Amino acid sequence: MSRVIVSCFGLSIDGFSAGPDQSLDNPLGVGGTTLMEWVFPTRTFQRMHGGGGGDTGVDDDFAARGFANVGAWILGRNMFGPVRGPWPDDEWKGWWGTNPPYHVPVFVLTDHPRASIEMEGGTTFHFVTDGIHTALTRAKAAAQGQDVRIGGGPATVRQYLQAGLVDEVHLALSPTLLGSGEPLLTGIDMPALGFRCTRHVASPHAMHVVLSK
Amino acid sequence: MSRVIVSCFGLSIDGFSAGPDQSLDNPLGVGGTTLMEWVFPTRTFQRMHGGGGGDTGVDDDFAARGFANVGAWILGRNMFGPVRGPWPDDEWKGWWGTNPPYHVPVFVLTDHPRASIEMEGGTTFHFVTDGIHTALTRAKAAAQGQDVRIGGGPATVRQYLQAGLVDEVHLALSPTLLGSGEPLLTGIDMPALGFRCTRHVASPHAMHVVLSK
Repeated sequence: MSRVIVSCFGLSIDGFSAGPDQSLDNPLGVGGTTLMEWVFPTRTFQRMHGGGGGDTGVDDDFAARGFANVGAWILGRNMFGPVRGPWPDDEWKGWWGTNPPYHVPVFVLTDHPRASIEMEGGTTFHFVTDGIHTALTRAKAAAQGQDVRIGGGPATVRQYLQAGLVDEVHLALSPTLLGSGEPLLTGIDMPALGFRCTRHVASPHAMHVVLSK
Repeated sequence: MSRVIVSCFGLSIDGFSAGPDQSLDNPLGVGGTTLMEWVFPTRTFQRMHGGGGGDTGVDDDFAARGFANVGAWILGRNMFGPVRGPWPDDEWKGWWGTNPPYHVPVFVLTDHPRASIEMEGGTTFHFVTDGIHTALTRAKAAAQGQDVRIGGGPATVRQYLQAGLVDEVHLALSPTLLGSGEPLLTGIDMPALGFRCTRHVASPHAMHVVLSK
């Protein structure tokens, strides 16, 4: 059965999933990379970015799990890039170079129409201007029975959570303080939405928790 | 040197350090005991409550550390008890029976004056009606060079953090969702207060993080 999942989402001690002031130099906001330090050494991450080797173990298991059985992604505009407002041209094609790590259709939420972009390696970016429900309908169709992963950022995950559309959330509780930025769960009553913590396992870098219904 | 510390403070995935609706039956609020499941099996906790045995290891190390070199405590009114408003009589003497686990002077913040209560085992409850600074001055004097531990609840810890009076915070990030209750760090910029995460270590029950300056 096709599920809607959030995976490999870092959460700081003080509740943020991205730092403030996202920019070309700080895709995760200032300090935001500290949320993801658990993933950088993993074999999954290293291979995804063209490297060899990398660590196996708990962190890698979760990194790999986040890509298994995913047939389509949904991203918020800010996760796609730092460009705001109407697209000035077609130059920006995501943070990830010519061959992005998705390899499936990716639906980008935006208020500003843009033609789809076919990238190398099977990734196609589609731009959806009529809201989160339409994006999910299109993503589910594209996923052909596989899962749809909500890739982020935090504001996009919050919208899907609050609409009751998410089946499972994997968070990596990271030993970092951001002080400000984008909160993930603040003001969202997860138990009222049916979630409980059904699994937790720690690595030396993070405590992984799985929230499901 | 006498420090001001917060120790063994549970924090849920969604940022709460106590559940909602504290009462006689739910001293930590509804669901709040799930924040402390890491501590119940420890040798330190078991001994403190008259039991034998108990587990050693990471969780016990942190539980014991929270009582080492503590010369005085400060508690908020709600951590002392569920009674609100003026004290109806002298009947309520804390949640902990005739021999509380403090064994040193304990300063209770309240708007309502009350005579000090000497308990068995060296604990004396003093009631402070003129604010957190006075309570800290009195606690430091009573601690005679040892540390002052801010015992809670969350609102009391927040007040001392926001006033810049805390030197170290140990949190146990607990794999639980509360949905509502008393947030601990929401709206407090810990890095701006000088804190960073200086240590983290996980047990099967929680990820312990130490925030210091």
